[in-house]
Amino acid sequence: MKIIDSPKNDTIKNIIKLKQTKYQKKERLYLLEGRHEITEAIKAQAPIQQLLVTQTTLDANPTFLGDFETILISDAVSKHLADTKTDQGVFAVLPILTPTLPTTIKGAWLWLDDLQDPGNVGTLVRTADAAGFTGVIFGSNTVSAYHPKTLRGMQGSQFHIALYKADLMATLLTFKAQNIPIYGTALGDNTVSFRDVGPVTDFALVIGNEGNGMAPDLLKATIQNLYIPITGAAESLNAAVAAGILMFQLHQ
Amino acid sequence: MKIIDSPKNDTIKNIIKLKQTKYQKKERLYLLEGRHEITEAIKAQAPIQQLLVTQTTLDANPTFLGDFETILISDAVSKHLADTKTDQGVFAVLPILTPTLPTTIKGAWLWLDDLQDPGNVGTLVRTADAAGFTGVIFGSNTVSAYHPKTLRGMQGSQFHIALYKADLMATLLTFKAQNIPIYGTALGDNTVSFRDVGPVTDFALVIGNEGNGMAPDLLKATIQNLYIPITGAAESLNAAVAAGILMFQLHQ
Repeated sequence: MKIIDSPKNDTIKNIIKLKQTKYQKKERLYLLEGRHEITEAIKAQAPIQQLLVTQTTLDANPTFLGDFETILISDAVSKHLADTKTDQGVFAVLPILTPTLPTTIKGAWLWLDDLQDPGNVGTLVRTADAAGFTGVIFGSNTVSAYHPKTLRGMQGSQFHIALYKADLMATLLTFKAQNIPIYGTALGDNTVSFRDVGPVTDFALVIGNEGNGMAPDLLKATIQNLYIPITGAAESLNAAVAAGILMFQLHQ
Repeated sequence: MKIIDSPKNDTIKNIIKLKQTKYQKKERLYLLEGRHEITEAIKAQAPIQQLLVTQTTLDANPTFLGDFETILISDAVSKHLADTKTDQGVFAVLPILTPTLPTTIKGAWLWLDDLQDPGNVGTLVRTADAAGFTGVIFGSNTVSAYHPKTLRGMQGSQFHIALYKADLMATLLTFKAQNIPIYGTALGDNTVSFRDVGPVTDFALVIGNEGNGMAPDLLKATIQNLYIPITGAAESLNAAVAAGILMFQLHQ
């Protein structure tokens, strides 16, 4: 097994770059960290390119040895690679997959229109996974699924649910051609309380930007736009909480 | 109006300490930041002790002048006080209120048992506010409502909904004496799907620790324990998302 004990090692220098969108795009690879996340990757037989692990973490988790290149790293290297203050001693280099939409659309789909908070987006994917959704479509302006904070929020859900990146107006035509209803989320006129809708079998639910909501052209093209009645004094709900309420209402 | 342009000024040195729990406990004061948050404080006529604002922010928001001491601060002071990278140029020193429970318990109550993530806790309070809850009770082991990250998550909801700090086992006796049902949240046996419960008029909903759930003695003393059916492969839901789903189910 290869052993690396210096954070200045060239392999480490290249691997740490895979936390940045720029290098992720160039290499089509990302760096994942955390015991739970990497356990999910192994369980899902994800095509791990390299797994980097400290001796302590490997001793406690022998499943981190598998059909992939394993590099034993020092605590100093682990600390250097980690995005969090307390690192968990395990990292993996994984390919960024770019699946294409199935020919026949079935099930529940979450669309993310211009969401900017990576932690929120991670939680949204994790919630869609928990609610049994089929796929999540990241609109062109939505923050990356491979941002370190998105990855932390997803907790490995990228290994359970397919993530797509697409222009949402183009995707709308694909869904409409198959008569799949698209539900938007909005405040104001011409909206329906979420309690008056669902459950639905095949559909898309669109969540908009944290501050500005959905793009107006997309909002106009939906079958119905849903709101969550706010009976208190808060102006709005957190985007991930609102989406969670809607996902568990529409898809039961 | 008093003007402070140096971060080394003694008043500023004392004020910045009010971000730390230790000094918050000693002084019974906390430091709040952000335009939205402080607008909510002013709207609610909260007893602001001092408001600190930059000239630029004050010019754009004349409502930041009111019946309280206002200190004009330089951009350097604002940057120094801010908890976020991009400061909004306005801060307020506010008292930490310690309300006592009403004699007659009415409405919907959220109990937080040993929650540790301040961002999550802030979102939980904001969601309880949006859902029209009456109060939030912080169990003794739950993270402070006045942690800078909790404050950011609450977005000013502390001015709409009463926040209590109490021993939850003692509070349980108070609620039980008035026949107020207490709903817990748990996975496993003897739990009921959230879809089979509610809406309820007067009740308490208990959310447990992010990793370990509710304290066992509390869990045993509830009227029913609810779960959210997970149909996908995610192991669990984010605590704030789960609580949001339950709050909007129980209190309609």
